[in-house]
Amino acid sequence: MQALVYHGPGKKAVEDRPKPTIQAPTDAIVKITKTTICGTDLHILKGDVPTCKPGTVLGHEGVGRIDSVGPGVMTFKPGDPVLISCISACGRCEPCRKGMYSHCTTGGWILGNTIDGTQAEFVLIPHADTSLYPVPAGADEEALVMLSDILPTGFECGVLNGKVQPGSTVAIVGSGPIGLAALLTAQFYAPSEIIMIDVDANRLTVAKRFGATATVNNTSGDAARQVMALTGKRGVDTAIEAVGVPASFSLCEGIVAAGGTIANVGVHGVKVDLHLERLWSHNVTITTRLVDTASIPMLLKTVQSKRIDAGQLITHRFRMSDMLQAYDTFDGAAGTKALKVIIEA
Amino acid sequence: MQALVYHGPGKKAVEDRPKPTIQAPTDAIVKITKTTICGTDLHILKGDVPTCKPGTVLGHEGVGRIDSVGPGVMTFKPGDPVLISCISACGRCEPCRKGMYSHCTTGGWILGNTIDGTQAEFVLIPHADTSLYPVPAGADEEALVMLSDILPTGFECGVLNGKVQPGSTVAIVGSGPIGLAALLTAQFYAPSEIIMIDVDANRLTVAKRFGATATVNNTSGDAARQVMALTGKRGVDTAIEAVGVPASFSLCEGIVAAGGTIANVGVHGVKVDLHLERLWSHNVTITTRLVDTASIPMLLKTVQSKRIDAGQLITHRFRMSDMLQAYDTFDGAAGTKALKVIIEA
Repeated sequence: MQALVYHGPGKKAVEDRPKPTIQAPTDAIVKITKTTICGTDLHILKGDVPTCKPGTVLGHEGVGRIDSVGPGVMTFKPGDPVLISCISACGRCEPCRKGMYSHCTTGGWILGNTIDGTQAEFVLIPHADTSLYPVPAGADEEALVMLSDILPTGFECGVLNGKVQPGSTVAIVGSGPIGLAALLTAQFYAPSEIIMIDVDANRLTVAKRFGATATVNNTSGDAARQVMALTGKRGVDTAIEAVGVPASFSLCEGIVAAGGTIANVGVHGVKVDLHLERLWSHNVTITTRLVDTASIPMLLKTVQSKRIDAGQLITHRFRMSDMLQAYDTFDGAAGTKALKVIIEA
Repeated sequence: MQALVYHGPGKKAVEDRPKPTIQAPTDAIVKITKTTICGTDLHILKGDVPTCKPGTVLGHEGVGRIDSVGPGVMTFKPGDPVLISCISACGRCEPCRKGMYSHCTTGGWILGNTIDGTQAEFVLIPHADTSLYPVPAGADEEALVMLSDILPTGFECGVLNGKVQPGSTVAIVGSGPIGLAALLTAQFYAPSEIIMIDVDANRLTVAKRFGATATVNNTSGDAARQVMALTGKRGVDTAIEAVGVPASFSLCEGIVAAGGTIANVGVHGVKVDLHLERLWSHNVTITTRLVDTASIPMLLKTVQSKRIDAGQLITHRFRMSDMLQAYDTFDGAAGTKALKVIIEA
């Protein structure tokens, strides 16, 4: 089968790989119908994710059809359409039993990281009963790919951890797909302001269309000053970090109001400076989270009921044989205006 | 009147200062009967608190008698015994209305910081109605001095922010008065383990007596390894930072379990390294808080009902004329075994 294989920092290739086979009774093999590329895949290619070894098939998002299941799989049978969670979870260990599926002792974020992922014609999904969701009849499968990772990540790691509330002020640093997912789902909670910050004018225009009340272009590096001006020098109740570099985290530290929250969403490759000499008395909360995807069923209802339009995140479509071109398009977003790219089998 | 005056980093003196007089209708003048020295005063003397200018009378804890009140003070009259909160709060501004008294727009932590404090015979208390508490008849006033700052700080910034829960595991870095206050109040919530960490064997002995389930001496700098061994390599659900230096915060980063919380209590003078390259996916929460002292009435009940013995934190007593000796004793705790020192007028 065709697969996109990581070969160490900066290196990837489309290769022919053997089709996976059932290893454990709780495994399923899924034939991918649609997958996509995540900013996290770019972080892997930057070398930010040392757990991902050369030779791994990338990808942790997608929808498909069940090809085969092990004898312990109770919920799915061959032919069933399924949505793949980026998090594999046994459902039985202590972290799973308290809903922290991201830290499942035999799962977590392993797809396209420590085991082969979804950017291939077939993928092995461990713990299938608790790592896949049925696709409702008549659903727009393309939109559902946004539920594998990006929407739950923006929502759980950004909006829920950031404690967005009615009347509160929110800034989202990074208007890429994850930042936009946070923007869409933050609106469930009726904040009074959502300020989107980026250096890409196109992405800020998209953010306005998606519901941002204000946008800040940080090309000249003065976003903190602009946000303080927009908030009467108070800062924001919630600052969502959706980039994953020290400068964007530092910006969040500079704009969070006393009593506010910095919700980190970005994948970081290096440490950041935490200015406790100022923040120790600022009554702030800083959260980190690898998405648990516990919110997929809830978010699916908001997509199916058209409360949010997940499909508007998709800008480009490619065949699986053109995956390298899909990466180029996604990585060159400043020129291509790409948000999410769909890769179809 | 006698007062302990800060004269810039490393410098202080007992001096004769004029008795304060009512400035605003909501002011009270309190005649101090008992005050104490806080680790924060030592941070000021280290130069960690630039808001405190040379010439300021230090001190933000104490009990006393109302000497005089402005015409707007409704709750207190001359002669009333009062407990002084380290936080002055108007009760009317937006931060006060949501209970974040520490960020009162005309108050907060100002006593012994931006205005003259309690290490003197008399002190001016702004916003008296909402910054003082009546002392119950028959109360042990010495023990009540622990309610001005240390018990609410350990409780609010450490225990509440740290989300200590029944069955959870807690480590407290720093077995000084604030760490011990956190230790005493953490036990309200029945955690399964409270591990106290310090480099001072005496303070760890005290911690055992106060209810620690384990102690870790970090003299050789291997506390992280010891805590991981004590917790089956899992780490702790709550790590309370009660020192205020980069090494102690770093230790908390090293021992917090996935899904856990680092509750910063210490006053920091310099930035720290936040290892987001590891913690971004560790589902942790980091909190900072200047105490609001909103818990004083609740903690007062726990002291009055003998649920906690606040008086056991007091090791030494001095007259006000011996304040320099009191500082030496408090600052030299490794030799003197001092915890809290009471200064009596």
